[in-house]
Amino acid sequence: MIIAVDANGGDYAPRELVKGAVEAAEEYKVDIALVGRKTILDMLVRHYASRPSFTIIEASQTIEPNEHPVQAIRSKPDSSIVVGTKLVRDSIASAFVSAGNTGAILTAAFLNLKKMEGIQRPALCGLIHVNAANPVLLIDAGANVDCQPSFLVQFAQLGTIFAKGFLGINSPRVGLLSNGEEEIKGNLLTRDSYQLLKKTELNFIGNVEGQEMLKGKADVIVTDGFTGNIVLKTMEGFGDTFQNLLGVGQVFRVDHQLQGPALAHYVELGSTVKRMDYKEYGGACLLGINGNIVIAHGRSQAKAIKNAIHLAHRAAHLTPIEAIKNGYHLSN
Amino acid sequence: MIIAVDANGGDYAPRELVKGAVEAAEEYKVDIALVGRKTILDMLVRHYASRPSFTIIEASQTIEPNEHPVQAIRSKPDSSIVVGTKLVRDSIASAFVSAGNTGAILTAAFLNLKKMEGIQRPALCGLIHVNAANPVLLIDAGANVDCQPSFLVQFAQLGTIFAKGFLGINSPRVGLLSNGEEEIKGNLLTRDSYQLLKKTELNFIGNVEGQEMLKGKADVIVTDGFTGNIVLKTMEGFGDTFQNLLGVGQVFRVDHQLQGPALAHYVELGSTVKRMDYKEYGGACLLGINGNIVIAHGRSQAKAIKNAIHLAHRAAHLTPIEAIKNGYHLSN
Repeated sequence: MIIAVDANGGDYAPRELVKGAVEAAEEYKVDIALVGRKTILDMLVRHYASRPSFTIIEASQTIEPNEHPVQAIRSKPDSSIVVGTKLVRDSIASAFVSAGNTGAILTAAFLNLKKMEGIQRPALCGLIHVNAANPVLLIDAGANVDCQPSFLVQFAQLGTIFAKGFLGINSPRVGLLSNGEEEIKGNLLTRDSYQLLKKTELNFIGNVEGQEMLKGKADVIVTDGFTGNIVLKTMEGFGDTFQNLLGVGQVFRVDHQLQGPALAHYVELGSTVKRMDYKEYGGACLLGINGNIVIAHGRSQAKAIKNAIHLAHRAAHLTPIEAIKNGYHLSN
Repeated sequence: MIIAVDANGGDYAPRELVKGAVEAAEEYKVDIALVGRKTILDMLVRHYASRPSFTIIEASQTIEPNEHPVQAIRSKPDSSIVVGTKLVRDSIASAFVSAGNTGAILTAAFLNLKKMEGIQRPALCGLIHVNAANPVLLIDAGANVDCQPSFLVQFAQLGTIFAKGFLGINSPRVGLLSNGEEEIKGNLLTRDSYQLLKKTELNFIGNVEGQEMLKGKADVIVTDGFTGNIVLKTMEGFGDTFQNLLGVGQVFRVDHQLQGPALAHYVELGSTVKRMDYKEYGGACLLGINGNIVIAHGRSQAKAIKNAIHLAHRAAHLTPIEAIKNGYHLSN
């Protein structure tokens, strides 16, 4: 299984991308194809890797963060995003990881990999780790800002199939993100979606509020991509705040000022904050297209990239596209 | 200045309401009128207050959390929510604080206090305290789940006037909560709202993302009530998580296991978590009606109620309704 990694995309490309890829290859024994400028990548791989055995696929163009997605994809056929999605299309790579322009990745994925049969809108599935033993899947985490109720039902179906494979949950609980638990709560979109979700075969547990989402009340949380994106980024902001605060405090552990239960408590705090850190979960999976795509955060450094590659590897292994297609067609 | 407090509403009514009111009266020298069942309240006041000098206004009925707002208001004319809003209408109380059924409070406020002239939809203004020196105002925090762009412009105007008075900021920066910074990012509602906000006299700084909101990038964050409610509750969930974690750790301070910089760091962590705690900020202010209403969290206990009363007192003092009306009409 080969994972293609966009070495041109993201705020810290190409260096941190190469570092993350090298770390992932060594830690998870994944075969990686770096997609980018060969000359520079060859040099970076020689610098960072102990065994410079990386495949490098040439992609001479870079799509910048603020470029218009459709125009960029059309005008830059040799961009890492176009080349990477085509590697998946041609079954050369089992997944493509990119920290580049999200809109451009989505556009290239739709164009080159196509939507799965019957799917109206592919969606981003983000992972939330806070209090729950398992991560909670949040879908849509940002692909579709304006949604219809039928889209949310499909998000619930895709999320359920992904949770079964990826998390190994038999009958994933599906919750609808809303401003109140009661069936009558919500906006026009969620109230109509509620009525449709009730009629499905899914394990729909009703509305879930913001604070309940963090407690693992549902395994799959369904929402429109606008709300989902804002919620994920708000959580990321909290993660940053506490990372900074706890980072300052790491010295106390080193100084041995903390011992016994105080140290244990400090470690517990640290691990909670770590679970909230986007660098740990690495990225979001695009579901509903014919290929595995993981979109990493634009400001990903080596650690986040390493984890995004790990996520892509696990997703491709545990929820191969054929399984999602079959699951989707069985549930309809 | 008299603040009316709903003693029938909320998960811990009436005991915690009375306790909170007693604490607020003593700490902030506020005159309070408790609205509820006189016999019980007399007894509780005698029990908790050192000087039992509370005014008690009889309200024999309680609107339950899951009652339909409009039906409840109609069928329970002697409910604390109806009686309390009428005290404000009749200029007996300067503000009304309730932890009861939010929908019923909004309905009673609209019926009894009426919308301000020209305002399409009154909105809830929540306070976010995370990293910023000043709290950030989030409007709408849950009154209007489905919005039009023109509503969001009015939320921005109301929020600006409130920020000037309540926070003492000369030219409050207004941000539009969205899934990206660029003007083209957002859903249909926010993209259209962006165009309208650009044309106003407000200090509009553009789109603000979830993580930026926590960093105090804007003083007033405008959003629809569905998104605003979910974002506030998600933050509340984080606050709870860290409260629990740090609560466990308080023993270390008492045990003097922490000293010097380790203790200082621990205190800093604690104060950050405290700023995130809904019990500290107490509630949300309803803006755009002819009277001051503060809606407290349903699970408020004494401390949250005390802070909600303090908020109502400051809001009524710093942003009297006439000032909001004048500000609104000047800006149009």
